[in-house]
Amino acid sequence: MPDLAMPELPLADLPAIDAARLWDRHMELAKIGARPGGGVHRLALDPDDIAAHRRLADWGLARGFSVLLDPVGNMFIRREGADPAAAPVVSGSHCDSQPTGGRFDGVFGVLSALEAMETAEDRGIATRRPLECVIWCNEEGARFRPGCMGSEVYAGGLGLNAALSKVGDDGGILGDGVADLRAAIPEAGARALGTPFAALLEAHIEQGPLLEAGGEVIGVVDLVQGHRRLAISVIGREDHSGGAPLSLRRDAFVDAIEVCRGLADACRDPSDVLRFTFGRFTVRPNAVSVVPGRVDMVLDLRHPSQDELTRLGDLVIAQAQGFSRLCEVTVEDTSWHAPVTFSASVQAAFGRAADRRGLARRTLASGGGHDARWFPDRWPTGMLFIPCEAGISHNPAENVDPAHAAAGAQVMADVMLELAQAE
Amino acid sequence: MPDLAMPELPLADLPAIDAARLWDRHMELAKIGARPGGGVHRLALDPDDIAAHRRLADWGLARGFSVLLDPVGNMFIRREGADPAAAPVVSGSHCDSQPTGGRFDGVFGVLSALEAMETAEDRGIATRRPLECVIWCNEEGARFRPGCMGSEVYAGGLGLNAALSKVGDDGGILGDGVADLRAAIPEAGARALGTPFAALLEAHIEQGPLLEAGGEVIGVVDLVQGHRRLAISVIGREDHSGGAPLSLRRDAFVDAIEVCRGLADACRDPSDVLRFTFGRFTVRPNAVSVVPGRVDMVLDLRHPSQDELTRLGDLVIAQAQGFSRLCEVTVEDTSWHAPVTFSASVQAAFGRAADRRGLARRTLASGGGHDARWFPDRWPTGMLFIPCEAGISHNPAENVDPAHAAAGAQVMADVMLELAQAE
Repeated sequence: MPDLAMPELPLADLPAIDAARLWDRHMELAKIGARPGGGVHRLALDPDDIAAHRRLADWGLARGFSVLLDPVGNMFIRREGADPAAAPVVSGSHCDSQPTGGRFDGVFGVLSALEAMETAEDRGIATRRPLECVIWCNEEGARFRPGCMGSEVYAGGLGLNAALSKVGDDGGILGDGVADLRAAIPEAGARALGTPFAALLEAHIEQGPLLEAGGEVIGVVDLVQGHRRLAISVIGREDHSGGAPLSLRRDAFVDAIEVCRGLADACRDPSDVLRFTFGRFTVRPNAVSVVPGRVDMVLDLRHPSQDELTRLGDLVIAQAQGFSRLCEVTVEDTSWHAPVTFSASVQAAFGRAADRRGLARRTLASGGGHDARWFPDRWPTGMLFIPCEAGISHNPAENVDPAHAAAGAQVMADVMLELAQAE
Repeated sequence: MPDLAMPELPLADLPAIDAARLWDRHMELAKIGARPGGGVHRLALDPDDIAAHRRLADWGLARGFSVLLDPVGNMFIRREGADPAAAPVVSGSHCDSQPTGGRFDGVFGVLSALEAMETAEDRGIATRRPLECVIWCNEEGARFRPGCMGSEVYAGGLGLNAALSKVGDDGGILGDGVADLRAAIPEAGARALGTPFAALLEAHIEQGPLLEAGGEVIGVVDLVQGHRRLAISVIGREDHSGGAPLSLRRDAFVDAIEVCRGLADACRDPSDVLRFTFGRFTVRPNAVSVVPGRVDMVLDLRHPSQDELTRLGDLVIAQAQGFSRLCEVTVEDTSWHAPVTFSASVQAAFGRAADRRGLARRTLASGGGHDARWFPDRWPTGMLFIPCEAGISHNPAENVDPAHAAAGAQVMADVMLELAQAE
């Protein structure tokens, strides 16, 4: 795993970010794809997601930064360094959302990186390395699956053509969306996939309750928990809901809920570390007069231990049929990502920076997958978290304290500037 | 409840239907909206449903019958009687289907009525009263809710404008569909809503297993069981499925399945008379990475006893919240139809006709709602059933024995001809 030595800069050399600008921009971006009840609906490469990219590019271009697009729709806003041939220090996240997403998921990582670059610009600070703010394409996976797709292609884990040909739930093709994005930002230059970074950073809201509960403002992320998804289908028989006696039905819904309950019991974790979710559950034909003939669902398992994911997923495969009374049950793995550990040097840099600013911090694992997960084997990589209210995320009610956003962006700016001086 | 005296005709005066023609027409209609895996997809007033109407009109017009459309899209194929001013004997059903429907539901009732008229035509039998085959509009309620809509409007239970303004799941408007139907059948004359019938008959597949189990070929329907639907919503909180510990979630799916199980237990009926179905169950936002924030479902209850429907539905309303651990549960009635009893004289006529033909018969209740339900208070009304394979309906595998179809159509033809001589 690559790592780097990094100069420590004294606090006096590290400028304060503009907290009001940072917050105002969150509110500004939240208007794009705003939903009547709050939150945002900005699916990857839909018109609102592209409008958000355009707004971010405008903010960068207004400061004299350049904009680059790679072939899979990842966007880079670049502030040149004294040595333009040096690999850039890259920080960012994404601006697409879940169907009923919040205002901070992804956006905070993008805007804190941009804020660091603007702060350097405000103070006329020349860095040795270029600074870049990255907006990864299709992090959420809500329209095109899988998620974290743009970053995976950049890191070389998924082929470009495989990504561009993905068909979304609405029938749209990812490659067409990338073309739309390119057309919306004609000023953008080209970035080749895999162009090296000096380091890859990502700030994000925690999407969990631990920082809030502990009173910490900065979370230094040591690892991304592993993630295994299993598609489970329960196949019964459609019948007329008025005609068929219950004794003669093979009702897929009735058996599916037994399968869900049985698996939840079998996987129960008293330590509350395991994340166990049926987020997708589709009844067919889902008509009031028809006894369900089929249910398709996805079980999402997350755990910091690869061994535990192996044990639990295998248990699901072995036991699911046993919880069904009459219907056939099939189970298959649809995705499986091992836990990922971030670079020790970057963890240390975030920790030092928080301490220097007098910010309470703790080390914690990431519950969600993030774009940064693909990079620790290639370049020094790390993540920091800030608290989000009540741990609520992927929800219109998602919220953060403006002071926490400012604190997280300050730590990110400090570390980006330190890294930009590194050899 | 109106009833009528009816002449009994000797078997020698009752012609045999053409069983091969009857079956061929079922196979012919099954091609319209045929699905790759079998069965049909022919939602009310969609292009395939209209094509099926057109085909039926063509068959009628080819025999010199006339075609009439009423303002809500019910279609009548009419063979004149010796006394054209006499109220017609009307028999039929529907040709729309569930999304994954079968080849016989509704169609058997339409084609058996048409077969009776063609048999009379083949033999040159003059009846006193006109004979009509009716195709009721939107019986299934799969696209526009509620179902049995065209017949309800004809019977005066639902206003015409209320029906015409219904918006379907696909955004289509029922009134536009009726205009499309009218445009497809320019030969059709006008029928006023509520124009009296001498009698209203309906043949249908049983959509249940009782006839097959008992070895009977003819089911004389004494009543349509009552039908109560309750919309149940479970409201929790959306969260990130990787970030939120299980101990802190309010997962609407987890509580919804407890509500379903609890209600199924509370309503358990050892006599197996109650029909209890969750046919519609929708998880929101139904995304793999989001803990479900809301579940909306419909509980469909059917029972021959109005008192039992009252007791069970009220129990659901009173107890649903108690099965939820953390989420809010709301319950409301969305439709409630009392049981309906058919005319004694028509039941007797079907029974006599079956006996005369040597066909095993039994009396039974209808599990499903049918268009005939609206008419017993207005005109003599009755239904007959034929067996369907394994009781399976609302399913592409729906099937009937050609001999049973012929037997049912023969009994229907016999009774239509008898009624057409009645004063």
